[in-house]
Amino acid sequence: MIIVMLPGATHREVDGVVARIEAAGLRVHVSRGEERTIIGAVGDVRRLEPEALQVLPGVERVVRILHPFKLASREWHPEPSVVKVGDVEVGGDRLAVIAGPCSVEGEEMLVEAAKAVKAHGASILRGGAFKPRTSPYSFQGLGVEGLRMLAKVGKSLNMPVATEVLSEEHVGIVAELADCLQIGARNMQNFALLQEVGRTGKPVILKRGLMSSVDEWLQAAEYILSEGNHKVILCERGIRTFETYTRNTLDLSAVPLVKKLSHLPVIVDPSHATGRADLVGAMSKAAIAAGADGLLIEVHPDPPKALSDGQQSLRPDEFGRLMGELERIASAIGRPLTGVCHSGSGRQNSGRQAGSGRAAGMV
Amino acid sequence: MIIVMLPGATHREVDGVVARIEAAGLRVHVSRGEERTIIGAVGDVRRLEPEALQVLPGVERVVRILHPFKLASREWHPEPSVVKVGDVEVGGDRLAVIAGPCSVEGEEMLVEAAKAVKAHGASILRGGAFKPRTSPYSFQGLGVEGLRMLAKVGKSLNMPVATEVLSEEHVGIVAELADCLQIGARNMQNFALLQEVGRTGKPVILKRGLMSSVDEWLQAAEYILSEGNHKVILCERGIRTFETYTRNTLDLSAVPLVKKLSHLPVIVDPSHATGRADLVGAMSKAAIAAGADGLLIEVHPDPPKALSDGQQSLRPDEFGRLMGELERIASAIGRPLTGVCHSGSGRQNSGRQAGSGRAAGMV
Amino acid sequence: MIIVMLPGATHREVDGVVARIEAAGLRVHVSRGEERTIIGAVGDVRRLEPEALQVLPGVERVVRILHPFKLASREWHPEPSVVKVGDVEVGGDRLAVIAGPCSVEGEEMLVEAAKAVKAHGASILRGGAFKPRTSPYSFQGLGVEGLRMLAKVGKSLNMPVATEVLSEEHVGIVAELADCLQIGARNMQNFALLQEVGRTGKPVILKRGLMSSVDEWLQAAEYILSEGNHKVILCERGIRTFETYTRNTLDLSAVPLVKKLSHLPVIVDPSHATGRADLVGAMSKAAIAAGADGLLIEVHPDPPKALSDGQQSLRPDEFGRLMGELERIASAIGRPLTGVCHSGSGRQNSGRQAGSGRAAGMV
Amino acid sequence: MIIVMLPGATHREVDGVVARIEAAGLRVHVSRGEERTIIGAVGDVRRLEPEALQVLPGVERVVRILHPFKLASREWHPEPSVVKVGDVEVGGDRLAVIAGPCSVEGEEMLVEAAKAVKAHGASILRGGAFKPRTSPYSFQGLGVEGLRMLAKVGKSLNMPVATEVLSEEHVGIVAELADCLQIGARNMQNFALLQEVGRTGKPVILKRGLMSSVDEWLQAAEYILSEGNHKVILCERGIRTFETYTRNTLDLSAVPLVKKLSHLPVIVDPSHATGRADLVGAMSKAAIAAGADGLLIEVHPDPPKALSDGQQSLRPDEFGRLMGELERIASAIGRPLTGVCHSGSGRQNSGRQAGSGRAAGMV
Repeated sequence: MIIVMLPGATHREVDGVVARIEAAGLRVHVSRGEERTIIGAVGDVRRLEPEALQVLPGVERVVRILHPFKLASREWHPEPSVVKVGDVEVGGDRLAVIAGPCSVEGEEMLVEAAKAVKAHGASILRGGAFKPRTSPYSFQGLGVEGLRMLAKVGKSLNMPVATEVLSEEHVGIVAELADCLQIGARNMQNFALLQEVGRTGKPVILKRGLMSSVDEWLQAAEYILSEGNHKVILCERGIRTFETYTRNTLDLSAVPLVKKLSHLPVIVDPSHATGRADLVGAMSKAAIAAGADGLLIEVHPDPPKALSDGQQSLRPDEFGRLMGELERIASAIGRPLTGVCHSGSGRQNSGRQAGSGRAAGMV
Repeated sequence: MIIVMLPGATHREVDGVVARIEAAGLRVHVSRGEERTIIGAVGDVRRLEPEALQVLPGVERVVRILHPFKLASREWHPEPSVVKVGDVEVGGDRLAVIAGPCSVEGEEMLVEAAKAVKAHGASILRGGAFKPRTSPYSFQGLGVEGLRMLAKVGKSLNMPVATEVLSEEHVGIVAELADCLQIGARNMQNFALLQEVGRTGKPVILKRGLMSSVDEWLQAAEYILSEGNHKVILCERGIRTFETYTRNTLDLSAVPLVKKLSHLPVIVDPSHATGRADLVGAMSKAAIAAGADGLLIEVHPDPPKALSDGQQSLRPDEFGRLMGELERIASAIGRPLTGVCHSGSGRQNSGRQAGSGRAAGMV
Repeated sequence: MIIVMLPGATHREVDGVVARIEAAGLRVHVSRGEERTIIGAVGDVRRLEPEALQVLPGVERVVRILHPFKLASREWHPEPSVVKVGDVEVGGDRLAVIAGPCSVEGEEMLVEAAKAVKAHGASILRGGAFKPRTSPYSFQGLGVEGLRMLAKVGKSLNMPVATEVLSEEHVGIVAELADCLQIGARNMQNFALLQEVGRTGKPVILKRGLMSSVDEWLQAAEYILSEGNHKVILCERGIRTFETYTRNTLDLSAVPLVKKLSHLPVIVDPSHATGRADLVGAMSKAAIAAGADGLLIEVHPDPPKALSDGQQSLRPDEFGRLMGELERIASAIGRPLTGVCHSGSGRQNSGRQAGSGRAAGMV
Repeated sequence: MIIVMLPGATHREVDGVVARIEAAGLRVHVSRGEERTIIGAVGDVRRLEPEALQVLPGVERVVRILHPFKLASREWHPEPSVVKVGDVEVGGDRLAVIAGPCSVEGEEMLVEAAKAVKAHGASILRGGAFKPRTSPYSFQGLGVEGLRMLAKVGKSLNMPVATEVLSEEHVGIVAELADCLQIGARNMQNFALLQEVGRTGKPVILKRGLMSSVDEWLQAAEYILSEGNHKVILCERGIRTFETYTRNTLDLSAVPLVKKLSHLPVIVDPSHATGRADLVGAMSKAAIAAGADGLLIEVHPDPPKALSDGQQSLRPDEFGRLMGELERIASAIGRPLTGVCHSGSGRQNSGRQAGSGRAAGMV
C-alpha cells in the first residue's frame, strides 16, 4: 500500500500515518520527495484497509498495490485448480457443459430434459428447486420436493446435479442431495450464505453479481475459500448496463482476466446473461473461444410452457445443434467437450475423434 | 399487459397467446389491425409474467402496463404511510435524522457518539453490530455483543435504535433487541432474509441495491409487505456507475419518483452513497430539498480511529453544524426536523426558533 | 506519478523506466524496498501519460497522483471563477436561472416563453436553434433563422441568450449572435468543436457527457481554457445508468465535488437529466441545496405542442411556482436568485424580503 | 406506436391524442377496454416521436413498436450488406482483419507495422493521423502529414487504408486520401460529422459510443445512410461500465444482436475495448466465434515506444501468433480470413487449406 501525503503535510501528520501502519503490524518505508512525502506499507496489508488510512490527517491518497484477495489468487496458487463435480472435472483439459431446465417443474419434464441434454453431450444436470424471483408473486420453485426429484433423476442418469441455494436454512439439505451448490448473482455478497456453503466442503458455483466488480467477485470467493472449501467454480453471467435489448451484458473479457488473476475455474452462463434464446448460441461459442472452462445453459423440453425463463431456454434440438458447433470450436482451440461419458468407460473424446466421440456418447 | 404480435402472425399463434392468458385467469381483448394484431390482457397480470408470453410463437413484444408491485403502490394505498420507529415518526410532517457510528466498536465510543448525535437533533440511533464486509479479512462487527450494547445505550438515552441484519439466523435476536431492522444494499434481493424480516412485524429500513432499478426495489419491499409487515422505510444510498470519485452515485431523483409510485417513506443515506465525509453535507441538504423523509448519517467521535467507514463519517462537531444548516432548509420547505424531543413534550422546532430549539434539545 | 515495479523487476527494467521519465523532462526518485521498487516521477507529468509507462517491461502499475487537468483546477486558480453572460454573473453570490424553450419554434412562442421566464425571475434566455437529435428524421431546429429570432427576442427583453452549437461550421455565427454558447452532452468530447469555441472568447456552457467521468469533463473544459477562453460554465445534466424511469440519472454529488476540484461555476439542468416535468421541481431544489451556481430549465408556453422535449418542459405557471420555492431555499442557504434586475439597480433580494423582492422583479 | 391512456382518461383526452396522431399523417385505431383505452398509431411513426405524445393530457404511457431506424434495418434490407474497402469485402464470406498502429508516428515505423500486419494476414491497414485525446496536452497525431504517409504506405503495399476523421473540416482531405473513414466512439453522435461523411460516399467505420445503446448506434448509422451513403461498417468497441480492470466492457452480445436487427456488417475492436494487450487475443477469438465480420486490432512494432495506446497494442510476433489461432476458429465456423491476397490473384483460403493458405499469403 502506498500513502501519498498532501503537499503541505506536516511531520506530525506523517508520523501519525506511520504509527497507524505500525500498529497494524506492518513495516513502513518513508520517502520524502521535494513536493510530497510518500509512505509505503509493507507486510500483510490485508490487515489494514486503505479507507482506514485515507481518513488520517495529511493524507491525499491511498493506493492499494496488492490484490484484496489471497486464497483465490494466482500468486497463492499458480496452477489452475480443477474442481470435481461428481466425476466431472471443471477447469481441466476438457470443457464442461452444465445444462437443464431453469426450474424443476415436475419429474416427467425433468427426466425428458435430462435425457436430452445428456444425449447431446452435457455432463452435469442443472435445475432450480429454490428460485430467486424478483416478485413475491412469481413461481418460487418446488423447494425440497424439487430438490429430491433432481437428485433422483441425476442418479438414474448417472449425472451429477447442480442447483441453487437461496437460504442458509437450506444449505444442509441442498449439500446432502446435490453434487454442486450454486450461489446466484443476487446473493454473491450474501456473506452469511457464502460462509455457510463454505462450511459444507461441496463444490460451489459462484455467480458474479450483476453489480459486482471482478475484485468483489474474487473476494466473495475468498469468503468460501477461507472457510476451507477450495471447490469454487466462478460463473460469469452478465453485468448490468444501460443496454436494454439484452437482459444483462455478458462481460466475456472477465473470463481471460479472471483466469490471470485467479486459479479458479471460470464458466459462463449465456442464458441468464442475454435473457434471449436467440443469442445463447453465439455467446456460448464466444465464451469457449475466450477461454471459459465450461458453460451453464438452460434447456427446456417446451420453452413456451416453462414456469420461469422460457424466453431464454433452448429446445433440446437447438441445444443439440449448438453442441455440434461448440465441438468444432472446442477442437479448434484444443479443449474438447467433457461429453457424457465422463466416468471414463466409453467416450474417447480427443480432438481428433470429437465427432465420432459425440455420436458414441448419445443415449 | 399488451402483446404485440409479429407482422405475419397466424390465427393459430394468436389463439395460442389468448389461451395462455385465459389459462392464467385473465380476460383477453384482441385488436386486429391492418399490420399487426394486438392483444390486451386484463385482470391481475401479476399472475402472468411478460416473459412467459414473450416466448410464445408469433409474439413480437410484450409490454407491461401495470407496475409489478401492488402493496407498495400508491394506487393501492394513496395516502403516504408513516412508519413509527419507537416514538419517532418517519414519513410524517417532520424529517427524521438517524445517526450514529458505522460499527458499534465498544460501549464507551457508542455512548459518546449517541450523546453527540442526540444533542444535535438526531432522533434515532444507528450502529452496526453485524457488518457486511467485502473482504472476509475485514472487521466483521461485534455481533450479538454489539447488538446488546446498542440496545442498552439506546434505552439509556431514550433513543430508538436501528441496526442491520445480515443473516436469517439473526433476525430473531435483532428483532428482539432493536427498534428497527435494516436490510443492506447487498441483501436487497436476499429474498429469504426479506421474508424473514417480513414475519417480525418490526420496522424495516430497506436500502436500495447498488444496481437495483426502482421497480426491483419496490418489489423487494413487496416481499416484506406481503408477509404482513407494512412498516417499510425505503432508503436510497447510491447506485453503481462508472464515476470513481464517489463510492456510488446518489440517485436523488429516485426520491420524488418513488414518492409518486409508492406510499412508503423514503430516506437517504449520503454517507454510503458518496463514501466521502466532505460531500455528506451537500448531499444531505439536497436530499431534504428533494423531498426525502429523513436521513441516515454516519457520525463517529474520532473518524480516523473508526474500524470501518471512517472516511465517510462526520465528526460530532461537523454533524452539529450540518444539522443547523439542515434546519434552515427544512424550515424553508415547511418540514422541520424531528429533533430529540420527538415525544412532543419539549421542542418547539419552528423555523423561527430553529437555533434556540436546537439548543434546548441538547443533553 | 508513481510507478510500482513488479516483484522481480530487474535493474535494467528499472533503468528503462527511469530513462523514459527523464526523456520526458521529469525528475525521478527511485525507492528500492525489500519487495518492490517504487519510482516517483516529479515535474509536469502532464507531459507523460500513465499508459506510456504502463507498457514498459517490469512495470506492475502506474498511479497518477496529480489531476489530469491544470487550468481548470483549484490548485491553479484557488478562487471561484465568476463568468459573466451579458450582465449576468454565474458563479457569484447570486444564483442564475437560465430558462426558455427547448427549441426555438417560432418568434411568437419564443416571445411568450421569454416574457414568462423573465417575469418569474430567470435572468438568461435559452432556446435551441440547432438541435442534436438521435434520429435524422426528428425536427432538427430552425437553424440560423431560429438563432436570429433568439437574438432579437433576447435583445428586446434585455436578456442575454444562450444556445447550443453543434457544428464547427456554425461557431462563428453563433458566437456573433448569442451571448453564450452551449456544448451539448453528446459533443463534450468533440475536441474539434471544443477548440473552436475556445477560440471565440465567448462564455461557454459545457454540459457533462452522458458517459463522462468528472476527470474527462474537466479535461474537456481544459480544451477550451487552453485556447485562452476562461469563460467556461460547467453543467451537470445527468449520466447514463441502468435506471429507466428517468431519462438519465442526475449526479448531484458532482456539484460539490467539482466545486472542490475546480474554480469553474457549475450549474444543473434538471430538465434533460430527468426527462420528466414532474421531477424537475424537486431536482431544481436539490441542485440549489447541493451548492449549484444556477439552473438550466426548459419552459414552454404549451408543452404538449412542443416540437421537442415537451415531456420535460414546465408550463410558465409551473415555472413560476417553482421559482417561488427556489427563492425560499436560496435564501435559506444565503444565495438569493439573480432575478431579472441583475444589473443591481433594483432588486433587494434578501432572505427576509424574498417574496416582495420577487414581486418587485416582475415585468 | 401504442398509446396507453390513464385509467380515468376522458373522451376529450382521447380525442386530443387522436388528433395529434392524425395531424402527423398517421392512421389511428382506438380500442376502449373496461379499464383503459388503448390507441394504436399506424403508418410511418418515424414522423411522430413518442415523447410528443407522452406529454399529452390523459396519456399514461407510449410504447414504440417499430424500431426507430429504417434504412439500417433488416426489414428494409433483408440480405446482409457487403461493404467494399478498396478490394476487400467486409461482411461477406470471409473475415476481414484491419490492423496497424494506433497513431501514425512516422513513415519508417508505419512501413514496418504495415509490412508485418500484411505478412500475417491483415487485409486493411489502419493508422491514426488525427487523434481524439482526452487531454489537450496529449499527442494529437501528425494530422494531414500523417494522413499522407498512411496513404503512401497503403498504396506501396497494395493495402486499403482506414483512418479516423475528427472534424468536419477534415472530411474532404480524409475522403480523398483514405479508402475508409472512421468515426470514433466519442463522435458517434456528432451529427454534423455524420452528415458530412455521409455526403462523401466513402466506406465509413462507425464505432459504437461508450454509452450508446444499440438503438442509438443504428440511428447514428441512419444519419449516414440517409445522406445516400450505404457503405457503413459498424464497430463494437466496448461500452462503459463500473468495471475498472478493463478500459471498457466489450459487449460481444451486440454482435449477433445487431446482425439480427440490421443488414450492416459488424466488426469488433478488442484493443480499445479492453485497453490491455494481454486480453486482445482472447477477445479477438471470441468476437469471431460470436459472428463478427472482422476485427480492428492495434499492432505496433515496439509498443513501449508508442506515442499512444502502447499498452493495448500487440507486437508483430504476437499478432502473427494470434492470426494463426484465429484461422483455426475461422475455419471451424466456416468463414476463413480474408488474408492478404484480397485482390484475388493468389490465396486460396478455404477452411481445408487454412494453414498453407496463410503461409502462401506471406510477404
